[in-house]
Amino acid sequence: MPLILNEEDVLEVAHDLAIKLSETAAIRDKKGGNPKYERDLIRKSGLLNLSIPKKFGGIGAQWSTIFESIRIIAQADSSVAHVYAFHHLLIATVQLFSKPEQYTGWFRHSAQKQQFWGNALNPLDQRTKLQKIDKQYYVFNGEKSFSSGSIDSDMLLCSAHDEHDKLWIAVIPTTRQGIYFKGDWDNMGQRQTDSGTTQFEQVRIYQSEFLLDPGPLSTPYTSLRPLLAQLIFVHLFLGVAEGAFEYAKAQIQTQKAWFKSNATQAVNDPYIQQHFAAFWVKLESVRLLARQAITKFSQAWAVGENLTEQQRGEVSIAIATAKIAATETSLEITQNIFQVLGARATTAKLNLDRFWRNVRTQTLHDPIDYKYQEVGEWVLTAKVPDPSFYS
Amino acid sequence: MPLILNEEDVLEVAHDLAIKLSETAAIRDKKGGNPKYERDLIRKSGLLNLSIPKKFGGIGAQWSTIFESIRIIAQADSSVAHVYAFHHLLIATVQLFSKPEQYTGWFRHSAQKQQFWGNALNPLDQRTKLQKIDKQYYVFNGEKSFSSGSIDSDMLLCSAHDEHDKLWIAVIPTTRQGIYFKGDWDNMGQRQTDSGTTQFEQVRIYQSEFLLDPGPLSTPYTSLRPLLAQLIFVHLFLGVAEGAFEYAKAQIQTQKAWFKSNATQAVNDPYIQQHFAAFWVKLESVRLLARQAITKFSQAWAVGENLTEQQRGEVSIAIATAKIAATETSLEITQNIFQVLGARATTAKLNLDRFWRNVRTQTLHDPIDYKYQEVGEWVLTAKVPDPSFYS
Amino acid sequence: MPLILNEEDVLEVAHDLAIKLSETAAIRDKKGGNPKYERDLIRKSGLLNLSIPKKFGGIGAQWSTIFESIRIIAQADSSVAHVYAFHHLLIATVQLFSKPEQYTGWFRHSAQKQQFWGNALNPLDQRTKLQKIDKQYYVFNGEKSFSSGSIDSDMLLCSAHDEHDKLWIAVIPTTRQGIYFKGDWDNMGQRQTDSGTTQFEQVRIYQSEFLLDPGPLSTPYTSLRPLLAQLIFVHLFLGVAEGAFEYAKAQIQTQKAWFKSNATQAVNDPYIQQHFAAFWVKLESVRLLARQAITKFSQAWAVGENLTEQQRGEVSIAIATAKIAATETSLEITQNIFQVLGARATTAKLNLDRFWRNVRTQTLHDPIDYKYQEVGEWVLTAKVPDPSFYS
Amino acid sequence: MPLILNEEDVLEVAHDLAIKLSETAAIRDKKGGNPKYERDLIRKSGLLNLSIPKKFGGIGAQWSTIFESIRIIAQADSSVAHVYAFHHLLIATVQLFSKPEQYTGWFRHSAQKQQFWGNALNPLDQRTKLQKIDKQYYVFNGEKSFSSGSIDSDMLLCSAHDEHDKLWIAVIPTTRQGIYFKGDWDNMGQRQTDSGTTQFEQVRIYQSEFLLDPGPLSTPYTSLRPLLAQLIFVHLFLGVAEGAFEYAKAQIQTQKAWFKSNATQAVNDPYIQQHFAAFWVKLESVRLLARQAITKFSQAWAVGENLTEQQRGEVSIAIATAKIAATETSLEITQNIFQVLGARATTAKLNLDRFWRNVRTQTLHDPIDYKYQEVGEWVLTAKVPDPSFYS
Repeated sequence: MPLILNEEDVLEVAHDLAIKLSETAAIRDKKGGNPKYERDLIRKSGLLNLSIPKKFGGIGAQWSTIFESIRIIAQADSSVAHVYAFHHLLIATVQLFSKPEQYTGWFRHSAQKQQFWGNALNPLDQRTKLQKIDKQYYVFNGEKSFSSGSIDSDMLLCSAHDEHDKLWIAVIPTTRQGIYFKGDWDNMGQRQTDSGTTQFEQVRIYQSEFLLDPGPLSTPYTSLRPLLAQLIFVHLFLGVAEGAFEYAKAQIQTQKAWFKSNATQAVNDPYIQQHFAAFWVKLESVRLLARQAITKFSQAWAVGENLTEQQRGEVSIAIATAKIAATETSLEITQNIFQVLGARATTAKLNLDRFWRNVRTQTLHDPIDYKYQEVGEWVLTAKVPDPSFYS
Repeated sequence: MPLILNEEDVLEVAHDLAIKLSETAAIRDKKGGNPKYERDLIRKSGLLNLSIPKKFGGIGAQWSTIFESIRIIAQADSSVAHVYAFHHLLIATVQLFSKPEQYTGWFRHSAQKQQFWGNALNPLDQRTKLQKIDKQYYVFNGEKSFSSGSIDSDMLLCSAHDEHDKLWIAVIPTTRQGIYFKGDWDNMGQRQTDSGTTQFEQVRIYQSEFLLDPGPLSTPYTSLRPLLAQLIFVHLFLGVAEGAFEYAKAQIQTQKAWFKSNATQAVNDPYIQQHFAAFWVKLESVRLLARQAITKFSQAWAVGENLTEQQRGEVSIAIATAKIAATETSLEITQNIFQVLGARATTAKLNLDRFWRNVRTQTLHDPIDYKYQEVGEWVLTAKVPDPSFYS
Repeated sequence: MPLILNEEDVLEVAHDLAIKLSETAAIRDKKGGNPKYERDLIRKSGLLNLSIPKKFGGIGAQWSTIFESIRIIAQADSSVAHVYAFHHLLIATVQLFSKPEQYTGWFRHSAQKQQFWGNALNPLDQRTKLQKIDKQYYVFNGEKSFSSGSIDSDMLLCSAHDEHDKLWIAVIPTTRQGIYFKGDWDNMGQRQTDSGTTQFEQVRIYQSEFLLDPGPLSTPYTSLRPLLAQLIFVHLFLGVAEGAFEYAKAQIQTQKAWFKSNATQAVNDPYIQQHFAAFWVKLESVRLLARQAITKFSQAWAVGENLTEQQRGEVSIAIATAKIAATETSLEITQNIFQVLGARATTAKLNLDRFWRNVRTQTLHDPIDYKYQEVGEWVLTAKVPDPSFYS
Repeated sequence: MPLILNEEDVLEVAHDLAIKLSETAAIRDKKGGNPKYERDLIRKSGLLNLSIPKKFGGIGAQWSTIFESIRIIAQADSSVAHVYAFHHLLIATVQLFSKPEQYTGWFRHSAQKQQFWGNALNPLDQRTKLQKIDKQYYVFNGEKSFSSGSIDSDMLLCSAHDEHDKLWIAVIPTTRQGIYFKGDWDNMGQRQTDSGTTQFEQVRIYQSEFLLDPGPLSTPYTSLRPLLAQLIFVHLFLGVAEGAFEYAKAQIQTQKAWFKSNATQAVNDPYIQQHFAAFWVKLESVRLLARQAITKFSQAWAVGENLTEQQRGEVSIAIATAKIAATETSLEITQNIFQVLGARATTAKLNLDRFWRNVRTQTLHDPIDYKYQEVGEWVLTAKVPDPSFYS
């Protein structure tokens, strides 16, 4: 029996979860690896059903609620927030790339079992190859990097390229024979996202498991998928920046000012006030840009298959705009909380550098320079970005 | 018979006015002085009645509509926008500092005659002195600097200090005997705001003309007045930045790229695209921060006399936040449109430096460093800024 | 009889000149036009002979002395500094593009008469056409824009394009028949540089007046010419930034702090101190980068015709590096002196915006974005910039 | 027999050492702890004798040589560079705070044995207490934090406070009974500096071991000590920034451009070129500012006890200027190498985040905001910073 969560309770549930995650986030960051216990907390929370439509037993929450839950969790733990957000991205991917006839069963089952979906899709890594065996089934062979959330997942969105370099995407149970996770994700940030390599060895994929109708990025509407991914990043960056800001704010309230200050308490130091004001103004900007982007994304999602290229393009620009601001702001805040907190904030016990390491890593998903380029080109020529898995 | 303007027509009227103003804005900036013709255009437009409540014959528009009209006009001409905005500020000042019993007549008359209100209030300049003659009347003597919109005004909000350094504010017809405008505003920006010196020579002020009940900054509610002024500045800065951006955008679309570029047309140059994207992201941020500040201001305005210090303080922070972003952004954009447009954009014919000169001048009303200070102090200590004519 | 100036007296002479120029710089900026009186002061100072080798009756000063004199004059008046610096650029151009046999007479005469050289060379403006009349002479016809220092010059470096789009450069007396200056330079900055249009009407140029051996940009050594121009810009920007900084520093020492400051005097305000420190650090950087660039330029100049492409390229990078820093710094300082000085600094009487207008205009000579591009390309690929009139 | 190193060979020796250190720097950063093997490499290199005057058997190198060696080592390993630099700081401290009569024996012995000096001085931590036992000796009791380079040192500069809060500094062999190192330095950066806690338990200090004549910060000349420490930081920051820059440069030369770029190779991408140019310009500035600071410091060092407050103050400003630039630049470069290198640069194998973690940690020694404050105050009021252990 799945936990029944009402949309109005979501944020409270997310907050409770964030509190639990935050207690161990610093330690788990050092360990890296798969956060099995925390993933199960998410399963039990009921939040995984947010994006599954009501008719399939899910909550069918608004996108604004889903993003808010991502942001709240990211304030505490951006690794867990990442795989949690990608679960919703994958559910949405299936909705965009296939038809209810195909996904009804998956969604009902997922909602029922509080399944966690994982990712083995990376379209830039073409090492996994598709081979057709017969009318009924195919096999995948080869490796796929950056498989965030793959380990301990219940369902897996995976992809392979055929001999014509065409991308095929399928949905399979993670337990399908021949799937191995190398557990080789050991990076400087987002350390519990399991974003390592999936290895496919003669993995059987049935014809009915491919997302072919309408298929990936086949229309403006299906091309909302990468925009959803980008908007998730915005909320991860924002969440981390807020987490760092709140920590620094609470901490500085206990500190004395530097001996050369005209203030006694750090909170009354003119330069420390200035830093926090700068943080605040930028956070507020990102919050508002993110909210605007959600509104536009939600409207486009609601339009459905009739979404025009132009409409989709405008959502793309709103999200790119928010992403630029979120990238700059999260890097600046996570770097500069140290400037206000001073040398003692560098103790490994606190592990405060994880904020910076997490956004520094995640902001590299695709180069922000080319988000500027896309926005600038649109401003000047009205050309919207061509849909791709990065725009 | 006053022109009757419906609130839904306001923005169209403002746009039409902006188009007319923009035709001569560059030339008038060079001349400086009083823009009599343009002030009369505003009078005829009906926009001066926006802030006067319906029951007194005005339009009683929402603050969001008034700010939108200010922004639109500032895109074309920030001097005229300034005095236009200050007219509304002065109408609001009277509403905040006095009672309907006192201002009903003024407002009815103002609405009827499309009167333009001017300012001779500067509380930091204490050279104008109040002298009590008898129970019925007083006289003002001395000079008052930064009297924006005073020349060619119909009504004048003016102030003087008594022998205890107390500030007295009064409303009088500009034609009152003994008032002289020195016409000495000759500054590098905001050149048609007539922000020069008013000279009072034995100017008679009647007891009934003083704003005493509840009086200036006497309560959190009356202290919304300086916040309104600050929010006007936000919209002036934003409007100028938008005006500069739109000009640069239109112009660059006709230019070739620099000979070392890999593009032929300027709009396809990677660096020019980058600059415009940076402009765009910042403009969007300011627009959203400004909108948020309007919402909070409007809510506080609607609360009325029960407004608490805390509620007023939060409006103050929202406006300071928007002002910080608007200041930085407007300076950056008005400085850097030249970087994209190149040397030919410096011709005096275009007078494009007026955008920068205007915001550089107006942003100095009070130091932005202390807006950072106020916001930072609030973030760290929850202390809201003490009301003053600058916070 | 020319004034005999020793190299060791040059800086004192330049300082005296700067003091005189600074007395009227604000007023003359408003007037624009040709600073005849000031140009004659320069003629009388003897400084025009700095770059003429001793054997021709000049001073034969080191480049470091010449640049120092440019910087000092630019602190007071960047328009006059510009045409003064260009005089030396033109003398050097003749040395680079032609042989002593050709220029001995010009230089002797110039040194003797304290001649002022002017510029009508702009190689990007191809409207002036060359026509060969016979073996002995040619004619120039057409217009040439951006002719800095042309009006009131004694000698003119001018150029035209032939029917194969080849650039021909000649040296002629400015009084040559058929030369007209339209006096149409009316731009927002550098207003007394006379950088307007020269009109050539059947202007006769003798074969012996063309700079053909070795000719423009024909070797790495002759290609030092554009680098000299770029290094002049560095010193103009630096000089203006220093002028603005010194003015602001002197002025702030007389001001009270803002009423919200914890200091009484402005010089003790924590934010004002911070601004001036930021200015100082950047000025020091530019000064050192400029000095390093002079050293490298002087070494290359001393090498002579054997200068290799690679050696020339490294000078180019050192100058581009200094120019990037000088551009950013001069814009930042001239914009932000207002932030520390406050609203009263905007009075037209002071005309302090001329600092910003001057560097904003002059920094657009060629896009700084492509200086970044050149330096970055060299860092990453070791490719030095291709010589052109802008690199 | 000590290794005899000539000053002209120093940089080659430092380079060789840097190459060896760089091979294991990434791995050792993760481990943290005491780099015993690397410390012995330094001992064997002969570099420890650089700062010991020739007459005591040292090399008596110029400060410029010593700083150059620090910078070179910091490019490879800023932890080792830190303790290496602090060794020289401690040797200099003894020269400044005491007389040759006292230190001749220490220095001869140190030079002879290639001794490594360590630090347990932190004057802000007053937990170590001094107790006088009799005329001849005293004891130290208590803890002292931030004891960089203490573990595995041969000699120890240590301090305690007496009952009047007066600071006493002594030099003792590290093997002295009662000294324990807690080995508790586990921070996010500078992880092999052993900057943890020293514990003194009834540690006997002889009267002859105290640095009393002239004693700490007793004159402008002795107050060069903190300036030397600050100038060491400049070279640590610069070295790390250069190390990160060189790594990124070498790496990017092997990468393809992002698929949306108009270039094929990353080195030809316009934005990547721009980033590297920005890095370069800032590095060049810091290098020149550092060199200028060394020159001024060396001059002051050469002056000796006659050094005036004003002369000392100007050295202080030159070093603060360099430190501001070095701080901003090293943070910016170590943060942004990722922006050019992309997601794959985040792999833990490369451990590239150590560059950022190291400067982020070390730049917090004392708040850079107050370096700005000091420089700004000096610019505006000519007041030089008051000597302290941080200025």
